[in-house]
Amino acid sequence: MQHQRIIAVCGAGQCNAQIAALAEELGRRIVEAGATLVCGGLGGVMEAACRGAVAAGGLTIGILPGADRAAANPYVAIPIPTGMGQARNVLIVQTADVVIAVGGEYGTLSEIALARKAGRCVIGLDTWELGNDASGQPRVIPAATPAEAVALALRERS
Amino acid sequence: MQHQRIIAVCGAGQCNAQIAALAEELGRRIVEAGATLVCGGLGGVMEAACRGAVAAGGLTIGILPGADRAAANPYVAIPIPTGMGQARNVLIVQTADVVIAVGGEYGTLSEIALARKAGRCVIGLDTWELGNDASGQPRVIPAATPAEAVALALRERS
Amino acid sequence: MQHQRIIAVCGAGQCNAQIAALAEELGRRIVEAGATLVCGGLGGVMEAACRGAVAAGGLTIGILPGADRAAANPYVAIPIPTGMGQARNVLIVQTADVVIAVGGEYGTLSEIALARKAGRCVIGLDTWELGNDASGQPRVIPAATPAEAVALALRERS
Amino acid sequence: MQHQRIIAVCGAGQCNAQIAALAEELGRRIVEAGATLVCGGLGGVMEAACRGAVAAGGLTIGILPGADRAAANPYVAIPIPTGMGQARNVLIVQTADVVIAVGGEYGTLSEIALARKAGRCVIGLDTWELGNDASGQPRVIPAATPAEAVALALRERS
Repeated sequence: MQHQRIIAVCGAGQCNAQIAALAEELGRRIVEAGATLVCGGLGGVMEAACRGAVAAGGLTIGILPGADRAAANPYVAIPIPTGMGQARNVLIVQTADVVIAVGGEYGTLSEIALARKAGRCVIGLDTWELGNDASGQPRVIPAATPAEAVALALRERS
Repeated sequence: MQHQRIIAVCGAGQCNAQIAALAEELGRRIVEAGATLVCGGLGGVMEAACRGAVAAGGLTIGILPGADRAAANPYVAIPIPTGMGQARNVLIVQTADVVIAVGGEYGTLSEIALARKAGRCVIGLDTWELGNDASGQPRVIPAATPAEAVALALRERS
Repeated sequence: MQHQRIIAVCGAGQCNAQIAALAEELGRRIVEAGATLVCGGLGGVMEAACRGAVAAGGLTIGILPGADRAAANPYVAIPIPTGMGQARNVLIVQTADVVIAVGGEYGTLSEIALARKAGRCVIGLDTWELGNDASGQPRVIPAATPAEAVALALRERS
Repeated sequence: MQHQRIIAVCGAGQCNAQIAALAEELGRRIVEAGATLVCGGLGGVMEAACRGAVAAGGLTIGILPGADRAAANPYVAIPIPTGMGQARNVLIVQTADVVIAVGGEYGTLSEIALARKAGRCVIGLDTWELGNDASGQPRVIPAATPAEAVALALRERS
């Protein structure tokens, strides 16, 4: 059996309507591409992405900071209540083949850094810009739309 | 959306044929009962349980000690490569509504203890016996067969 | 520079006066033996052991389940606020050369199991009895007094 | 008893001589200021900072990614072998009152982000520049020298 392709969507637990729309479209397109969504399982970007994924009939994994699964947003099919706080960010990025970051604050920045440290490619939508690495490649690959972000994600292998 | 009911099967990464047969039947019966299987994702009891679950058409989550998903047994649909070593035992039991322990060594004992600490019921098949708690209830509820173990697990709520 | 010898004292966050007296004497004797004390940093057995260690002029490390160091008992010199809940039990036993368990409930049982899994020797004072392992050795080495527990601990190397 | 003031030094496991000199001076000045050093316990910036701290007679805590304390650099007095990989970065920053970042790659970036997420102030020496936050304050407070970095760190409370 081949493991399902898994794509992470990382972003803040609170967001405005524009970012939420991006995240919801991301979730939908990830599922339409045949992949599974993993995220931090809470609100904001995480909830919008899960809502889009579920609407498209997909599977959603929420790796929660707390120990209580009741904190998961209602679109998480498989909650993983870690009770490990921000250390759960490591699990999110390691579970994914590739990470898409949307907007976000320090938590999202930590996920970008941890993903890159773990050798995962990061696609960015309206998020932190971190310039180029020593080889001249962007540390976060910019995408202009959810469609482009998912297309870029499908090109990458963890 | 209601979270899927999740049952953990805990046991050693190496086991004899008799224990493997118990674990495989457990995996199958868990899926037939409409639940999702979570386990540590490696070999032995974990692999046998996943094999049974997949044969019955179910979903399998493997919460791995290492950071490399390639260590997952071939029947894990969703590998969570934690890179956290035995600390991942906490995640396995917290992810589950109820835990079934089969045979096992110190790793399994830690999962039983962590599950009980987290308020999860533990059903035991040929595993550690820990006597009764202060209220006179068995710390590990004994089951004689996989069928009985799953029936007992379905009675419990986390 | 040689790392300081580190001994863990594991036990419940609440305990009666008799168990607290054992733990306090353990803390004192650990320091008198030239070692550093590590524990879970909370109350009960942990606080009593730290109090004994500080009274003897020793160093105390408290690896806390929560993210707030204010939860440490007042005798912890170095609080490590993990925010990882019971997963911090893994850190306590791995930090120690040897583990002394005193009384205790499920959390202590998990520490005994995780310590043994990590190859650490466990000395027990009025705690879980787990019989002998396959080689006929006791899984938890019984001690009758704090003095004997520390003497046994000093014989072991992690 | 008051907890000792703890300052983290974060940076890469390999570094050039110039960065190492900055880190060693940081370690020395942290101890001269009466504080304890926490770091990731490995080589490069971490080892240089520990060397400086030990030379000044101070205490050094190394929170290691692996489970084997033998990986600690020789200047770590108290190794905490977490076995949790990069998740240990969360512990480093939470253990500290304030974080000083020196040079560094993605691991250091994750520590900066996790520190800020945890409400810790970050002082930067020749490290990632992340602009200003919404209130117009620098996300990483720049310092020109180790002396300035430690002076800034002493002004902050976690």
